[in-house]
Amino acid sequence: MEPESHVGVVGLGSMGMGVARSCIRAGLATWGVDLNPAACEALRQEGAQGVATDAAEIAARLDALVVLVVNGQQVKRVLFGEKGVAQRLKAGCTVMVSSTLSATDAREIASQLAALGIAMLDAPISGGAAKAASGELTVMTSGSEQAFTRLKPVLEAIATSVYRIGDEPGMGSTVKIIHQLLAGVHIAAAAEAMALAARANIPLELMYEVVTHAAGNSWMFENRMRHVVEGDYTPRSAVDIFVKDLGLVADSARALNFPLPLATTALNMFTSASNAGFGQQDDSAVIKIFSGIRLPEATPQEKG
Amino acid sequence: MEPESHVGVVGLGSMGMGVARSCIRAGLATWGVDLNPAACEALRQEGAQGVATDAAEIAARLDALVVLVVNGQQVKRVLFGEKGVAQRLKAGCTVMVSSTLSATDAREIASQLAALGIAMLDAPISGGAAKAASGELTVMTSGSEQAFTRLKPVLEAIATSVYRIGDEPGMGSTVKIIHQLLAGVHIAAAAEAMALAARANIPLELMYEVVTHAAGNSWMFENRMRHVVEGDYTPRSAVDIFVKDLGLVADSARALNFPLPLATTALNMFTSASNAGFGQQDDSAVIKIFSGIRLPEATPQEKG
Repeated sequence: MEPESHVGVVGLGSMGMGVARSCIRAGLATWGVDLNPAACEALRQEGAQGVATDAAEIAARLDALVVLVVNGQQVKRVLFGEKGVAQRLKAGCTVMVSSTLSATDAREIASQLAALGIAMLDAPISGGAAKAASGELTVMTSGSEQAFTRLKPVLEAIATSVYRIGDEPGMGSTVKIIHQLLAGVHIAAAAEAMALAARANIPLELMYEVVTHAAGNSWMFENRMRHVVEGDYTPRSAVDIFVKDLGLVADSARALNFPLPLATTALNMFTSASNAGFGQQDDSAVIKIFSGIRLPEATPQEKG
Repeated sequence: MEPESHVGVVGLGSMGMGVARSCIRAGLATWGVDLNPAACEALRQEGAQGVATDAAEIAARLDALVVLVVNGQQVKRVLFGEKGVAQRLKAGCTVMVSSTLSATDAREIASQLAALGIAMLDAPISGGAAKAASGELTVMTSGSEQAFTRLKPVLEAIATSVYRIGDEPGMGSTVKIIHQLLAGVHIAAAAEAMALAARANIPLELMYEVVTHAAGNSWMFENRMRHVVEGDYTPRSAVDIFVKDLGLVADSARALNFPLPLATTALNMFTSASNAGFGQQDDSAVIKIFSGIRLPEATPQEKG
């Protein structure tokens, strides 16, 4: 990839939009694709080279294609579906798959692309919407040296931490999935602990204060239990995201014939929360599966 | 308590020894009690006012008694057993119970002491041996204003963070137990994640690096998984400590008729590790319950 290279980003959700903006800011000729015309229009106004609701329209111009749709099934549809772009990419274009998907999917997609002569980097990202917007993501990559080298300008534009896990596609996704195992279990454990505190009539504000200053703390406890203490379940990341991600964790473990006592339990907790109607609330709403407790409620002003 | 007050510490394990030393350093006339004469002798050389293998010998001199034995049963034996000290304490002596015990035990002990006219502060501690030695513990207290005020010189000598949870003995212990719930689940989750990484042939050093720089991190992951990466299971805190503490968590939840899906699972994991022969190893050895993986082993030099 030369400095005047063209990079396409498919999927302009909160993460994809941040990635596309970071590419523009880094001086890359950036193309955006999303089914939602409003997202396309927003990126055009940020200085995109061009936008489209159909990736097929721009595929032939790209030196790099970043895929940031919701799941493995969507990645496959974008690349190999009816109007799939894989066959339309020019020789030398490199695909970076940054959606969270199973290692099995990552390997399968890489080998289908390889059959078309296209190199792929398995490159899931972490850090949330704010770090996507500021170009400070963490990327866990695996794939050939060639794919990695060609995508360097994109990686440098979007991330401050880039890990090379190995040469085999699927390893990056595995690391991301194991990270999500911890994130999900930590949110569920935080909810379980705060629910028990509520049951024992411990002031939750005080419980939060003690834990966040002691060895029982986790990044997720500190970040998510603030929402519980404030009674604010506006979704930053939703319960259903962890139903999906812990589902991927479970799939990956099954493929490796490996038991996961805690992650399985946490998946059950998020699934119960989703079925109870909290799927679109903040993931800290997993605490609502516990009955027989009173949780703090947001005051009307805080809600507004 | 006046500056020239006499404080006794029963139980000179790693935590109790640190607490006693911190009292000496703060200028309090400090008495130490332990069944082990070597521990007594060590504290005498540090400047203790006096030491004894039997608390009954020194009870009458004390203005404050800190109990830091292993569990609730031992606390009861020290205070109310055959040679129990409760009846030997002078009027106005205040008892600070800093062992980790159930809220039920804490309430029971407080009410037995109250019947003898003795005030008690429920005051479990957190922070580990190093912070005990440096006088930088965290204390979660509950009890009467009077008990709290009288023990202030001791609290100031041993801790940098002192929380007042409420007036009712048992609340301090509940907060400590909920903290241990998180600590135990986080160690078990860290082990589960690293075991899955080992199964997937992800280099553990790299997995550690990614997690400790991302939202999946916890204090326990960062601290304990270092031991796994180095293959060093020298016990800082042992598996059996979490069999005990998560057992207290389970007891407390049962007393409140409250389900704990994750903590129950983590207790099963530590119990399995203990039964497999790892009870006296570092608590990170809970990872050894997973079969079908190869974990790093310490090189001979590192072991020495």
